[in-house]
Amino acid sequence: MRTIEWNNGTIAMIDQTLLPGEYKIIECGTVSSLCEAIVSLRVRGAPALGAAGGYGVALAAHTGAHAIAAATTTPANTMTTPLMFKHFMHALHAAAEMIKQTRPTAINLAWGVDRVMGAIMESGTRRIDEAKGIALNEAITIAEEDVQRNRRLGQNGAALFEDGDTVLTHCNAGRLACVDVGTAIGVIRAAVEAGKELSVISCETRPLNQGSRITTWELMQDQIPVTLITDSTAGSMMREGKIDRVIVGADRITRDAVFNKIGTYTHSVLAKEHSIPFYVAAPISTFDPVRMEQDIMIEERGPDELRRIGDVMLAPADAAVYNPAFDATPIANVTAVITEDGVMYPAKPDWWHGIMNS
Amino acid sequence: MRTIEWNNGTIAMIDQTLLPGEYKIIECGTVSSLCEAIVSLRVRGAPALGAAGGYGVALAAHTGAHAIAAATTTPANTMTTPLMFKHFMHALHAAAEMIKQTRPTAINLAWGVDRVMGAIMESGTRRIDEAKGIALNEAITIAEEDVQRNRRLGQNGAALFEDGDTVLTHCNAGRLACVDVGTAIGVIRAAVEAGKELSVISCETRPLNQGSRITTWELMQDQIPVTLITDSTAGSMMREGKIDRVIVGADRITRDAVFNKIGTYTHSVLAKEHSIPFYVAAPISTFDPVRMEQDIMIEERGPDELRRIGDVMLAPADAAVYNPAFDATPIANVTAVITEDGVMYPAKPDWWHGIMNS
Repeated sequence: MRTIEWNNGTIAMIDQTLLPGEYKIIECGTVSSLCEAIVSLRVRGAPALGAAGGYGVALAAHTGAHAIAAATTTPANTMTTPLMFKHFMHALHAAAEMIKQTRPTAINLAWGVDRVMGAIMESGTRRIDEAKGIALNEAITIAEEDVQRNRRLGQNGAALFEDGDTVLTHCNAGRLACVDVGTAIGVIRAAVEAGKELSVISCETRPLNQGSRITTWELMQDQIPVTLITDSTAGSMMREGKIDRVIVGADRITRDAVFNKIGTYTHSVLAKEHSIPFYVAAPISTFDPVRMEQDIMIEERGPDELRRIGDVMLAPADAAVYNPAFDATPIANVTAVITEDGVMYPAKPDWWHGIMNS
Repeated sequence: MRTIEWNNGTIAMIDQTLLPGEYKIIECGTVSSLCEAIVSLRVRGAPALGAAGGYGVALAAHTGAHAIAAATTTPANTMTTPLMFKHFMHALHAAAEMIKQTRPTAINLAWGVDRVMGAIMESGTRRIDEAKGIALNEAITIAEEDVQRNRRLGQNGAALFEDGDTVLTHCNAGRLACVDVGTAIGVIRAAVEAGKELSVISCETRPLNQGSRITTWELMQDQIPVTLITDSTAGSMMREGKIDRVIVGADRITRDAVFNKIGTYTHSVLAKEHSIPFYVAAPISTFDPVRMEQDIMIEERGPDELRRIGDVMLAPADAAVYNPAFDATPIANVTAVITEDGVMYPAKPDWWHGIMNS
C-alpha cells in the first residue's frame, strides 16, 4: 500500500517507527490519534505530512459530522442548520490548528491542512455533508498529485546522474517520506529505471535512524545497491573520492536556505569542500515564498532520543541534550533544486522567480 | 581506581562497554582475555591502549613464567636454563604480536608493547624471573608516565582557552581513554582548574557512542557543564556561532595527518569553514615518525555496530555496512597540537622537527 491512505473513515498508514523489524499498518480514527502518529513520527517526511495534513482535515470533517449527526435526534438530521454548520466549522478550525502545530518546521503539513480548509471555504457550502465530501476529495487529490509530482520530479532529476555514480543521501526522502515514489530517492529510482547503474550511500541519520531503518530498507526492497554508514563517515568518504553526488529532500525552502534533517548542512559544507554536486529534491509545495531563514522555528525534540535506544542507556539518564530536528543550509551551498517543474540553479540570480512563476 | 591497573598478577580495568549503566571492574588473567577486552573496547583510547600493551607483555611474562615453573619438576625450578629462557621469550614474542594485532590503527598499543619488550632486550638478562620483573616495572612506568604526561599536556593546553568558551569534543579523549586525567578532556579539566568557566559540547560519536556513554558521564562526574548532541549537529551549531573551539585526541599523528575517531575529519572541515580553532591533544608517543598517511591502515569494524543496539534492529539484518573506526584529518586543518612538551603549530614549516627533537 501507499505510505498513507484514506480507508473508509480512518487514515491508514505504515507505522514507520517499527521498520525494519516490523511492517505494520495502523489506522487513525480520530484527529488526536493522527496527531500522536505525527508527533511520534509514525508518519514523517515532508510530502507525506502534506497528505497527512489534508487527510487530517477530512478526518476531522468526518468525525465532526458524525458527532453532530449523533447529537441530532430529529428525523431531519441530514439537514444542516446554520448553527450546526457554525459548530462544525468551529471544530474543524480547531482540529486544523491542532494538526498544524504537531510539527512546526516542515511547511507541507500546514500547506496540506490549509489547502483542504481553503477548498471548503472557496466552495461556499453551508452544508456539513457537502463540506465533508469536499474535504475528502481535496485530500485524495493532494495524495494523488504527490505521486504524479514525484514521478515528474524523478524524471527531471535523473538526467543529472551519470552511469556508475555513487550517491550519498541523508535521512529518508523516499517512498515512505511521501505518499509514494519519493523525492530524493525518487530521483535515484528514475535514474535507475532509465538504465543508469547507481549505488547509494545511506547515512544512518541520528538520532532516529531514518536512514538505516527506512532508506536502506526501501532501497534493498528495490534491489538498488545501498551501503549504510554513520553520519560522520560522509566526510572521509568524500575526501577519498568515493562520493560523486549528494541528494537530499527538504522540509522547507526559503529564498535563502533549505531546511532539512539535522546534518544536511554538514553534508553541504563537505560537498563544497570536495567540489561534489549537492542536490535538493523537493516539490514546489516545499517552497515558502513569504519567509526567510531567520523567520523559521527549528523544532527541538526530546532528550531521550539521544539518551537511550529501547532499553539500552546511551548516556546518563540526566544528561543535558540539544536535539534540533532540522538545520538550515544556505542556498549558496546548493548546486541544484530538483522540482516537478524542472531543475533550478540557485547560483543564477533569478532562480527563485523561476520557481514561483512555474 | 585508574582506567587500567596491575593487580597482583592480573590486569584490572573499568569495563567501558557497560558505562554509563554500570561501573564494573573486570580482571584479565590471560593474554587472550586481554585481547578480547581490547577488541571489544572494554579498554579503549590511544593512551590507555599504550598502558594495556605494556601491561599485556607483563601479563604474558607472568603467565609464561608460571607455566614454565609448573612444567619444571626439579627442585632447581627457580633457575632458568638457556632452553627454558628461549621458550619463554618465544612465547613472549608471540603474545606481543597477538596483542599488537588487536587494533592496528592506534600507534600507542604497539608502542607500549614494544617499549616493554625493548626493556627486556636491553637489560641483557637470561633469567625468566628477572625478565618478568623488568616487564612489570616498565609497564608500571608507562602507566605512571601517562598520568604525569597528561597533567603537563593539560597545563600546556589550558592557556589556549578563554573564560566562557564553549568547546566541542568528539569521542572520548578523557580519563577513561588514558590511565588517568585524559588528553583533550585533560586540557579542559586543567583550564577549569585554572579558574576558566568552560562548557562542553559532547558529540555522541557513532556507532559506539563513546561521547554519550563516556565523555558526558566523565564530565558530569566532574561537574563540568556538558551538553550532548548528535555528531551531525556540530555543523549547524558552528554556523550559529555556538562553538568557540574544537578539541579532540588522536590515535596516531603522521607528518601529514591526524588519525582519530571517524568523524574527526568532518569536524575539522566544519571548523575551517567557520574559522574556529581546531586543536588535537596527544602525547608525543602518538607521533609516528616513520610513516605518512598513505601508509596507515584504517581499522574497519563489524557491520552489526550500525545494524543494531541491544535487541533493537536499526537496519535490515543483511544491510551492507561500511564502518571504518577512524579517519585521517590533513594536518593543514589542525590549528595546534597540544603535547606534554608544549603546543606545536602545524602551520609553521618546522613544526614536526620541534616535536621530534623535544
